[in-house]
Amino acid sequence: MAEPKDNLQMEKIVSLCKRRGFIFQSSEIYGGINGFWDYGPLGAELKRNLRDAWWHTMMREREDVVGLDASIILHRAVWKASGHEDTFSDPMSTCKSCKKLIRSDQWWTMMSEQQWVQSLAALVAPGSGAFDGADLLKWAKGKGKQLAPNLALVRNPEVTLSWLAQDIEKGKRPADAKEFYLYLATEQLGATGFVTPCPHCGGELTEPRPFNLMLKTNYGPIASDDNLAYLRPETAQAIFVQFKNVFDSSRVKVPFGIGQIGKAFRNEITPRNFTFRSREFEQMELEFFIPPDEAIQLLHGSVAQWSEGADLSAPQPNWGWEMWHRYWVAQRTEFYSRIGLGPDVLDYYWQKKEELAHYARACVDILYKFPFGTEELEGIAARGDFDLTQHQKHSGKAMEIFDERLRAAATKLTDEQKKTFVAEVQEDWNDHNKSREEAALFCEKLFKGIYVPHVIEPSAGLDRMTLAILCAGYHEETKTDDKGKSETNVTLNFHPRVAPYKAGIFPLLKNKPELVKKAKEVRDLLLPWMSVFYDDGGSIGKRYARQDEIGTPFCVTIDFDTLGEKPELLDTVTLRYRDDGKQERLKISELRDWLLARIR
Amino acid sequence: MAEPKDNLQMEKIVSLCKRRGFIFQSSEIYGGINGFWDYGPLGAELKRNLRDAWWHTMMREREDVVGLDASIILHRAVWKASGHEDTFSDPMSTCKSCKKLIRSDQWWTMMSEQQWVQSLAALVAPGSGAFDGADLLKWAKGKGKQLAPNLALVRNPEVTLSWLAQDIEKGKRPADAKEFYLYLATEQLGATGFVTPCPHCGGELTEPRPFNLMLKTNYGPIASDDNLAYLRPETAQAIFVQFKNVFDSSRVKVPFGIGQIGKAFRNEITPRNFTFRSREFEQMELEFFIPPDEAIQLLHGSVAQWSEGADLSAPQPNWGWEMWHRYWVAQRTEFYSRIGLGPDVLDYYWQKKEELAHYARACVDILYKFPFGTEELEGIAARGDFDLTQHQKHSGKAMEIFDERLRAAATKLTDEQKKTFVAEVQEDWNDHNKSREEAALFCEKLFKGIYVPHVIEPSAGLDRMTLAILCAGYHEETKTDDKGKSETNVTLNFHPRVAPYKAGIFPLLKNKPELVKKAKEVRDLLLPWMSVFYDDGGSIGKRYARQDEIGTPFCVTIDFDTLGEKPELLDTVTLRYRDDGKQERLKISELRDWLLARIR
Repeated sequence: MAEPKDNLQMEKIVSLCKRRGFIFQSSEIYGGINGFWDYGPLGAELKRNLRDAWWHTMMREREDVVGLDASIILHRAVWKASGHEDTFSDPMSTCKSCKKLIRSDQWWTMMSEQQWVQSLAALVAPGSGAFDGADLLKWAKGKGKQLAPNLALVRNPEVTLSWLAQDIEKGKRPADAKEFYLYLATEQLGATGFVTPCPHCGGELTEPRPFNLMLKTNYGPIASDDNLAYLRPETAQAIFVQFKNVFDSSRVKVPFGIGQIGKAFRNEITPRNFTFRSREFEQMELEFFIPPDEAIQLLHGSVAQWSEGADLSAPQPNWGWEMWHRYWVAQRTEFYSRIGLGPDVLDYYWQKKEELAHYARACVDILYKFPFGTEELEGIAARGDFDLTQHQKHSGKAMEIFDERLRAAATKLTDEQKKTFVAEVQEDWNDHNKSREEAALFCEKLFKGIYVPHVIEPSAGLDRMTLAILCAGYHEETKTDDKGKSETNVTLNFHPRVAPYKAGIFPLLKNKPELVKKAKEVRDLLLPWMSVFYDDGGSIGKRYARQDEIGTPFCVTIDFDTLGEKPELLDTVTLRYRDDGKQERLKISELRDWLLARIR
Repeated sequence: MAEPKDNLQMEKIVSLCKRRGFIFQSSEIYGGINGFWDYGPLGAELKRNLRDAWWHTMMREREDVVGLDASIILHRAVWKASGHEDTFSDPMSTCKSCKKLIRSDQWWTMMSEQQWVQSLAALVAPGSGAFDGADLLKWAKGKGKQLAPNLALVRNPEVTLSWLAQDIEKGKRPADAKEFYLYLATEQLGATGFVTPCPHCGGELTEPRPFNLMLKTNYGPIASDDNLAYLRPETAQAIFVQFKNVFDSSRVKVPFGIGQIGKAFRNEITPRNFTFRSREFEQMELEFFIPPDEAIQLLHGSVAQWSEGADLSAPQPNWGWEMWHRYWVAQRTEFYSRIGLGPDVLDYYWQKKEELAHYARACVDILYKFPFGTEELEGIAARGDFDLTQHQKHSGKAMEIFDERLRAAATKLTDEQKKTFVAEVQEDWNDHNKSREEAALFCEKLFKGIYVPHVIEPSAGLDRMTLAILCAGYHEETKTDDKGKSETNVTLNFHPRVAPYKAGIFPLLKNKPELVKKAKEVRDLLLPWMSVFYDDGGSIGKRYARQDEIGTPFCVTIDFDTLGEKPELLDTVTLRYRDDGKQERLKISELRDWLLARIR
């Protein structure tokens, strides 16, 4: 359960987001629409800066990655081949009483958030004095019966109370609502007919059944099965589907990547945690295509093995999937650091072997410590050749590429060496439940220089990244003045690279035309190069505070010294740093380059 | 009908787009999906540059426009209020024979493109010698009867032939297929039971009926009327719906604008002309909010009148809707010029009074001369207060703003002056079919400083803009060498601002490490600032040609002089212009700024 403190933190962030125009509820004037959000002026700029940062880092600054901008609606066959039509689902239960739908794997979280579970727990909370069986009994027979007809305590209050009392006497008092609930629900009654209760009303939930998360539509004038389509649940598949077109039209060679940014849709059963789990969201996905390890073995005699401390700074020809996977984890970590999400706020979760999809070699989640829990920002998966192979099978179109160097390397092998090579591949593949025939066929093609590339997939969520930036940046400071009046100031400590505005531009006084004129000149000097905000309203302190609250890293004030009151300061400005309030004097002629160096 | 030459031009462009990775058919490996397109590596960059150009020009470089990034799926009530649910439709007919669906207002265009109509026309084409009634009769009784059972000529061939022969004798030979078809279909048989034939098979079409163009979906676990939603058919409505949130959270004052870029969907009955009319597309829309003319009258005593040659360079406080509308037409024209679409390739269509929507004051379409016809790139409409008023009515939430200066101006009026003002507004509104009561109520609020803003809407299509840039840039030149061998080179003359790559970077020879090292240094110098393409394959001429074909405006060659073979040329490079092939020598230290100045 989220701690109350963290809920409060989120409430403050949600409220700031609305007040200063970062994020609004979609269709708010019509009561909103659950799971959809709109980004206001500052949110749109922030999101845009993050999008640009990703595109520049992942694509424009690299020679081995190219972009794609595919449609949201793809042919239905794409989702058949990818497995989404059959298996992209969450387990869902329905309450037999209130008919509400519950995502089964979120049941605990939802239960523990309910007021009635919390008030139930309060009755036995630590520090609430001696255990009062009478209170609990009263609750169970009255409100409990209506709210949670299916709960152990309600169904057999005397029995529950007696073992609860015994346990508490032994010092085993539950620590919080969750523990207490678990205790009531499963520890003693699990075997005697406990039925999973609805988090909303306590009624009985049905068994979980799979619920497909793709949103459907029909294109073409008459809706039919022939023109049924899904709104893409991820941007990745379009990359696989267009792999050959991109490969054939661009001057790229494996290893290389195709990246894409775009909207995706998932029909979440219970959208949650502000923009974190929504039904419409934006992804930034890279599919990085590499040769299979067997090709590296053939070309270089061995495949580089990863070990702690291995040099991941520059890709090497003898890298197999493991090194490439580690490389991308390092690259993505570096990216987060460059937008202000350093190691202190991130965490990693390496999926265990048994958690991996059957085709995946490895998957690591990069997590951010949100106020509501440590949750996934990005997943980086080594997906083997699963996706391209699926599309090759379903479309009948070859997804293979030809590498002359590989063919040449194979011709140098003796028949005996080839045999050994095939035998080794067969043995290795046996561990992955693939047949000897498959392995032999694969080697045969490999010797001709032909293979289906494997893929490493760093897949990031833009809305989550935006939310993490907002959460990480949020700071408040309460100051009390001489008269005992206290004021709380909020600062968003955004990295200059992602801040919606890079600088606030202020004339010291708005009723001095010379100051205003000069300030507008400074604004016009910077506008073609970066977003700046001109403000002449209120005291300089107020103006600083307004910019702090929207994350502007620098403020520039044009004062009388700028105009030459002190001749040696002519054409200089006061530059003030958001993060420590320090100020320095800068020449106007150097301002643009000074700022450019800090916002890239 | 598109001239064959123009079809050929489009075919070449479509083919180049696929070959060089600008645009692919969506889901191509599965047979494609009609009306959906994917942008490959170069297309994604081109589109991205256009998006950035719009965002920078319309938003970041202005202080009076802010951005929005709203969801694609909005509450259904939005589309009820906007009128889309009831009236956003095209007229559609169904063929009673082949069951195909035809957009009624495109019937002529589709007819004239059909091979059978063209071959029919060829029989009587000018220059085809004497009129051969026998040929036509043969066609009508054989192939014609199958293809066009409903056509005048087929139903009564002798009669048709006799008057056709008479007319041709009189010199009234039809000029082309379209004219001939019109002649056959309506001129003589219109009154005697002509039935609109299907362009595909010639069968009988049903009467047109309205067909709603919005794509439907359902969000939430169980599809029902309660969670029916539409994929937005335009980005504009989200701006109106969030008007108050943006106004309240941003430091803006009317006049100001809200801009948005994003995907929209329309279930086109017949997607056409490559990416021009597709089912999924991207819009760039600005809603610019202004006071009603009556407020300007009250504040300034008069409203500026537009006349030919009026100064539109800087907005003035006494501008009403007409000046603002003209201003935005001028601004948008300037924008197109800055991305390489000058006055020579653009045209304008001012909608006639009777063509305007009932609430619109004026609408001008900016057109581009595509090979398939002169078609709309952008519409700029003066929409009055229709949209905000509709949402105010349907949501019950006020969309009004308060202007203190207006209230102050009103308090200075005598009762008599107020009466005169109201009477004038009533008279004026009478011309627009609005009641005296409405006008009086409006004035009453206006005197209190309160009004619903009016709007000017420049609405551009990103895919159309991209296609226009491709069409405008496409040039081919065929050169024949001494041996009589001819070669055709294609150049895309993109404006540097929108070109996917800004410069090609070439070492003169790829087997000289010093040249390669230096060339890579130049590349790394530029990469953080712009997209460049490093190429060391083939002759310099080949490399130039490759960059010409993808629209790269500049090429930079690192040669032995760069390394100091001629000491005075040390650390200089050859810069070659795409458009005229001219070359000059530039210092590496000046290269970045030289390029930056040209690509902004």
